[in-house]
Amino acid sequence: MKYGIIGASGRMGQEIARLFNKNGHQLVYRKDEKEVDASAEPEIMIDFSLASAFPETLSIIKEKSIPLIIGTTGLNKDNLTELHNLAAEVPVIQSFNFSIGINILSKLISQVNNYLDKSWDLEMTETHHRFKKDKPSGTALMLAELLKQPVEIHAKRLGSEFGEHKIEFASTGELISLKHRAYSREAFSRGVLLSAEAALELEPGFYSFQDILN
Amino acid sequence: MKYGIIGASGRMGQEIARLFNKNGHQLVYRKDEKEVDASAEPEIMIDFSLASAFPETLSIIKEKSIPLIIGTTGLNKDNLTELHNLAAEVPVIQSFNFSIGINILSKLISQVNNYLDKSWDLEMTETHHRFKKDKPSGTALMLAELLKQPVEIHAKRLGSEFGEHKIEFASTGELISLKHRAYSREAFSRGVLLSAEAALELEPGFYSFQDILN
Amino acid sequence: MKYGIIGASGRMGQEIARLFNKNGHQLVYRKDEKEVDASAEPEIMIDFSLASAFPETLSIIKEKSIPLIIGTTGLNKDNLTELHNLAAEVPVIQSFNFSIGINILSKLISQVNNYLDKSWDLEMTETHHRFKKDKPSGTALMLAELLKQPVEIHAKRLGSEFGEHKIEFASTGELISLKHRAYSREAFSRGVLLSAEAALELEPGFYSFQDILN
Amino acid sequence: MKYGIIGASGRMGQEIARLFNKNGHQLVYRKDEKEVDASAEPEIMIDFSLASAFPETLSIIKEKSIPLIIGTTGLNKDNLTELHNLAAEVPVIQSFNFSIGINILSKLISQVNNYLDKSWDLEMTETHHRFKKDKPSGTALMLAELLKQPVEIHAKRLGSEFGEHKIEFASTGELISLKHRAYSREAFSRGVLLSAEAALELEPGFYSFQDILN
Repeated sequence: MKYGIIGASGRMGQEIARLFNKNGHQLVYRKDEKEVDASAEPEIMIDFSLASAFPETLSIIKEKSIPLIIGTTGLNKDNLTELHNLAAEVPVIQSFNFSIGINILSKLISQVNNYLDKSWDLEMTETHHRFKKDKPSGTALMLAELLKQPVEIHAKRLGSEFGEHKIEFASTGELISLKHRAYSREAFSRGVLLSAEAALELEPGFYSFQDILN
Repeated sequence: MKYGIIGASGRMGQEIARLFNKNGHQLVYRKDEKEVDASAEPEIMIDFSLASAFPETLSIIKEKSIPLIIGTTGLNKDNLTELHNLAAEVPVIQSFNFSIGINILSKLISQVNNYLDKSWDLEMTETHHRFKKDKPSGTALMLAELLKQPVEIHAKRLGSEFGEHKIEFASTGELISLKHRAYSREAFSRGVLLSAEAALELEPGFYSFQDILN
Repeated sequence: MKYGIIGASGRMGQEIARLFNKNGHQLVYRKDEKEVDASAEPEIMIDFSLASAFPETLSIIKEKSIPLIIGTTGLNKDNLTELHNLAAEVPVIQSFNFSIGINILSKLISQVNNYLDKSWDLEMTETHHRFKKDKPSGTALMLAELLKQPVEIHAKRLGSEFGEHKIEFASTGELISLKHRAYSREAFSRGVLLSAEAALELEPGFYSFQDILN
Repeated sequence: MKYGIIGASGRMGQEIARLFNKNGHQLVYRKDEKEVDASAEPEIMIDFSLASAFPETLSIIKEKSIPLIIGTTGLNKDNLTELHNLAAEVPVIQSFNFSIGINILSKLISQVNNYLDKSWDLEMTETHHRFKKDKPSGTALMLAELLKQPVEIHAKRLGSEFGEHKIEFASTGELISLKHRAYSREAFSRGVLLSAEAALELEPGFYSFQDILN
């Protein structure tokens, strides 16, 4: 497919281009802040840029009337409302985390929650590289909200660890441990690829990445 | 409740008595091979004995007409058929593994299976104490059957490890790891307790421990 | 050998008796608070009681003039001085942690310290059962002191975990992880056995468990 | 310093150039098979090429009379003898594994060996990415040789795992686990950097990377 990236020079933009090109797709539209480089009309648009550039993304999609896959973080309530409005016209797939593994982990946590009661102990640990600013990670906070009870989040900062999240549930008899580790940004670009390939078949509407996975 | 144990002197029998008594229940019937010690009529019967004693268990249950929770391993196809016949008269709860955690793990594996395709790598590791005869463990073989693809089972024998099973799924972008560790036989006796407490409310029928958990 | 235990009814006392008897030694002297039960003269004395009973231990050893292996926690500076004085007369082996594994781990940490500089990240995690009062554990604090730099100690309380300590060192290129897990009090009783068997051959003097291991 | 790389276009060659340049050193000599690109005389030479190119490396070093750091794998007994001969003239640092972590792990394993006897169980696990051909890894085989007893090596192939090695020692009371994970080739280039910086101060002689670490 012919695709476009808003935020093409960012780390996610570069990784997405790498994976998509490897899978035979063609990057025909690139946008970084005000600079646009277009060689043809894209069939879908991917946005991994900054929340500040969001209004421009809205205009572009309204004009091109193509599916949008957006992973830009920092979108606020109003932005999400605007995305829902846009979704009346085109398929919009929005997520703050396009990793297949983290999304599966979220489902597993909800499952485990149903079986266990308050008598089970709960611990969460997240490990990231030494330069990560958020502590604890946004993903850890998101996973913590899925649990029925408050949980302490142990945050470790070690070397070049790309990102690991672990949740442990324990009774006096046994322990269940669910863990996810992302090796690289490919954990996310693969989810974007899955979404892009699905988008071409979707009716207009607002979809989360979880919806695409199901 | 008043309960009875067939195989009362075995390790599981003793652990079940410990946990049940701690929870306020009374052991009124004990059987070990030919020796019976009964002080009152039990409301339910628990069997963690040997497959060779199975015919006697059938007679006892038919006579007493009470629910049966049976965890005896080594039952063959005919035994299971006889249990199904018995289940026409009383509730029968049968499992080869009464650990809540292992049963949850089984459900999670089936879930993960649905989301992932053959491109994901699969590894399973089981760790047990140095005296464990089965290699790999029966539980590992049971979990392996739940996976859509053949998997290599790495079996480690270390010290006094009671029992740990881990399944890892990996793509080029990320890794998902599901692990269960039993601290002691309490991992199983808690599942038996759950089943016994449920059994008093059940209609005659054959139930697996998975059914009780749901 | 014929041996005696001060604190014989405590959990460590019972575990020590179990392991020593399994190894062919005879328990000929038992003391719990004021109650003494002696059937013969012990060749060595083991003390795993309370710091409040320490003065009585001193008297008993002075009177019997036999080696003392003491693991009683909570001894203060004065108590240790008194032990050093006692050591002029008999061999005294004193430690707050008789686990062979933790003592080896301590040596390994010191080794790793020599090779790595301040540019390496450091994280420590300790996991114990839900009833453990100290947080973080005394052992974690002791291990932390061996490191050249301050380290954050992540303390997890999960089910029936007997005791696990993990130290991770990471540079931007790699990670080294050292971990110890005690399955049960046998981790400590084995170190006491090693010390007791060594004590019979020692000259009067004050020995740490580390000295015995070397 | 001004440095040269034989095998400059290989993955290790590129990583070494990246790290060395980041640390202010200048790449003045590049060789790939028959192609040489030299802008100045190097002060030291690094070789991460193929065993088949080894004779040319020998000639180059003899001619330039500069220190050699060589990590080329697949060198045979004769090659190593020739290196020892060369070491009469210049400092030669040779290793099959320039990771600081793996070398420390080797020392730790030897340490643990001294304290433990044959009653301890031993297990080794190595995990690498799905494309790794050697099974088990060369590093695992090297670490296995350091242990006093034969050990089973469990080899896992998962996704994009760069390289992890774990050794577990267990008695009936406790478990000790030593683990190393390389995040990337930087685990090795850092060891090469350490060696190169040391080489400028060394007398002619044959040095292993372990010697440099001490």
